Amino acid sequence: MVGVSTDSSGHEHDVCGSGFKHLTPIRETLHTFLTNLPKRPPDVETVAVSMALGRILARDVLSEVDVPPFDRAAMDGFAVVAEDTYGATTTAPVFLRSVGSIHIGISHTLRLNRGEAAAIVTGGQMPQGANAVVMVEYSELREDGIVELSDEVHPAENVARVGEDVRRGMVVLKKGARILPQDLGMLTYLGLKEIVVARKLRVAVLSTGSELHEGSAFVSGKIPDINRPILTGAIRELGCEPVDLGIVPDEFQQIRSKLEQGIQTADILLVTAGTSVGPGDFVPQVINSLGKPGMLVHGVAMRPSMPTGLAVVNGKPVISLPGFPVSAYIAFLEFVYPLVGQMLETSFLPRPTVKAKLGRRVTGILGSRTYVRVLVVSSEEGFVAEPVRTSGAGILSSLIQANGFIIIPEHVEGFEEGQIVEVELFRPVGRG
Amino acid sequence: MVGVSTDSSGHEHDVCGSGFKHLTPIRETLHTFLTNLPKRPPDVETVAVSMALGRILARDVLSEVDVPPFDRAAMDGFAVVAEDTYGATTTAPVFLRSVGSIHIGISHTLRLNRGEAAAIVTGGQMPQGANAVVMVEYSELREDGIVELSDEVHPAENVARVGEDVRRGMVVLKKGARILPQDLGMLTYLGLKEIVVARKLRVAVLSTGSELHEGSAFVSGKIPDINRPILTGAIRELGCEPVDLGIVPDEFQQIRSKLEQGIQTADILLVTAGTSVGPGDFVPQVINSLGKPGMLVHGVAMRPSMPTGLAVVNGKPVISLPGFPVSAYIAFLEFVYPLVGQMLETSFLPRPTVKAKLGRRVTGILGSRTYVRVLVVSSEEGFVAEPVRTSGAGILSSLIQANGFIIIPEHVEGFEEGQIVEVELFRPVGRG
Repeated sequence: MVGVSTDSSGHEHDVCGSGFKHLTPIRETLHTFLTNLPKRPPDVETVAVSMALGRILARDVLSEVDVPPFDRAAMDGFAVVAEDTYGATTTAPVFLRSVGSIHIGISHTLRLNRGEAAAIVTGGQMPQGANAVVMVEYSELREDGIVELSDEVHPAENVARVGEDVRRGMVVLKKGARILPQDLGMLTYLGLKEIVVARKLRVAVLSTGSELHEGSAFVSGKIPDINRPILTGAIRELGCEPVDLGIVPDEFQQIRSKLEQGIQTADILLVTAGTSVGPGDFVPQVINSLGKPGMLVHGVAMRPSMPTGLAVVNGKPVISLPGFPVSAYIAFLEFVYPLVGQMLETSFLPRPTVKAKLGRRVTGILGSRTYVRVLVVSSEEGFVAEPVRTSGAGILSSLIQANGFIIIPEHVEGFEEGQIVEVELFRPVGRG
Repeated sequence: MVGVSTDSSGHEHDVCGSGFKHLTPIRETLHTFLTNLPKRPPDVETVAVSMALGRILARDVLSEVDVPPFDRAAMDGFAVVAEDTYGATTTAPVFLRSVGSIHIGISHTLRLNRGEAAAIVTGGQMPQGANAVVMVEYSELREDGIVELSDEVHPAENVARVGEDVRRGMVVLKKGARILPQDLGMLTYLGLKEIVVARKLRVAVLSTGSELHEGSAFVSGKIPDINRPILTGAIRELGCEPVDLGIVPDEFQQIRSKLEQGIQTADILLVTAGTSVGPGDFVPQVINSLGKPGMLVHGVAMRPSMPTGLAVVNGKPVISLPGFPVSAYIAFLEFVYPLVGQMLETSFLPRPTVKAKLGRRVTGILGSRTYVRVLVVSSEEGFVAEPVRTSGAGILSSLIQANGFIIIPEHVEGFEEGQIVEVELFRPVGRG
């Protein structure tokens, strides 16, 4: 395997015998792809808060109420006028007159004057005039109705003030936020029953290949199509809706008619295989025949997934993914996540990472970003990352046996045995 | 605020005026809780592969087939007997007789003898007798049916051997694995239509509190119950099924009858509020009245969530969560994840993390683990983590405004302004 050209001078030399004359770095690929997409706000829909988990907010959510809605006791004890307690100690308590007892969940119009106190429990509505709570530990209600207080409190002490948590008119959740469990609590607290979210994107998947067949058995030279199950799962994990366009043989007109159908019915179109530069690789030409601007980048400086093509056809994003499942999946992670992020005006959490000691030297290709599949195990000497056997991108088992990726950046030749590297995990680490 | 006792001598002193005489460290809490649960394999069910994304495998999956199922060409070119090509170069090519052309997806019984070659495309079934492929770049088929080869290949070169990816009988997916998109591809490849997974755990949630009411408006001193929406969402995110037991007032018999119902219908029981040591805090006594061993730990060395109680009642796990929503949610993350992991014989990915510069000093409480909510923003000087305003665990907005936690370990007093700290993210980092 020879070096990879990363210059953009357009010299007519082949890269790695792959047929590609030029490979575009990932960063530049994404920039070209995403800036060529029309900027338009996502379609929206209204959903019940109870169904909103994981959805993307399409509007800022403002509070129409104060939280708490009234001053509340933050401790069990006695509601007082703070100034009445000044100087109170165990040896020199202050004496106030008890005027009642406030239970939780009960609305009332009790008003305290100077010299008065009212028993109150945590969460109870503070009486008018009171501005602090003396904790129960420092209070004693005598039989004659006098409360003995052995601690002083300052104004607002042990009180949750109206609007302390959320003020009316405040933006509590921002457009683009993915709804988390705690957000459901906040939405409920604010009295909201429905919210406006981005409609789920429909992502169509078409597999091309005369060797592929529907179904999951090996019959007479045919191979089960596994790219659609993988990509369909990946689309669901991303919170989108898969649209299955099935399989077509490597035949220009058949591919073209299916892609036309996909462009009409979906928001994003993924097509696997036929994306190299060999004689049976029609997909890039088909895409270019469908509309402008067509293929924007074809051949990306990454291993695997090099033959990936990125196109925009009449405003719709189309990604031509390699036929090898591992390549298709890695290109999906690298390109479809930021694409959906831009279209829904949101972003995604990074993948979890661990630091691990590399069990064996790994090499990349200067100028390309390389994804090394590794199995991280927990051993006596900490986490150890063992590169998983691969002999080509077609080896699906490398993604099954591995629990993470090491990414070798474009400018790095590789990592040495024993070096501490960062691993992006997709499965938890087990015992070695 | 005074120091926290972490000794286990049982001295009768109060901890922080909280009413707790002793706080148990999180690690010891989990150990006591999980070892007191009966060890039994999870219930299982059979699901279609197409519905299996995210489910937990309950059995190892073995391959009943070889992958690939036959030797396949890994390149376009000519299938040959490698030994026939030895010594071939551009200046001294080797000449073989073409005996046919092999298309992809077509089963055949072609057999090569020495001196013969057959055109083949990537993925095509290798003829009997052939053991290598000369790439198309080094091959030329003349009009007289003779193939000129200008490169030598060794045996197995450019061939994907039968069983190279997966051998028949091999364990491809292990019990306890969460089904990922790539696993759906492998299961399809192996011809599997169904798999045996752990039945989803049913997690019941009961809210206690006389101040709470169903519905989402503030009416006459009542407060909407937000713990159930939050926990229900958290249960779904964890891949379990929520069972809603509603709200009961702070009344012993009512709480008891609801908890009895929960223990009968669910695999895990969560009950919020009433878990402190005040006069209205019945939940621990109710739990102890229901069966053995009852409360195992009550009072955990963590802030927030200190009053959390962990119990086992007649073999069922019961967690008594604090009433403050932030406390309830943090205790959920800390205890329910490992609980479900043990019950389903699986484990979970860690949360994603980033390193960030701390914008302000934060202090913990020696002996307790402290969860500081922060907002990480991306600035010119890298990621900066600003602690979010909190005045107690009741401040729900701290979990809404923040995008991550800093965890101050038990033995650490705090972190200084400007220190680089690790933040566990639950929302992506935005621009500051």
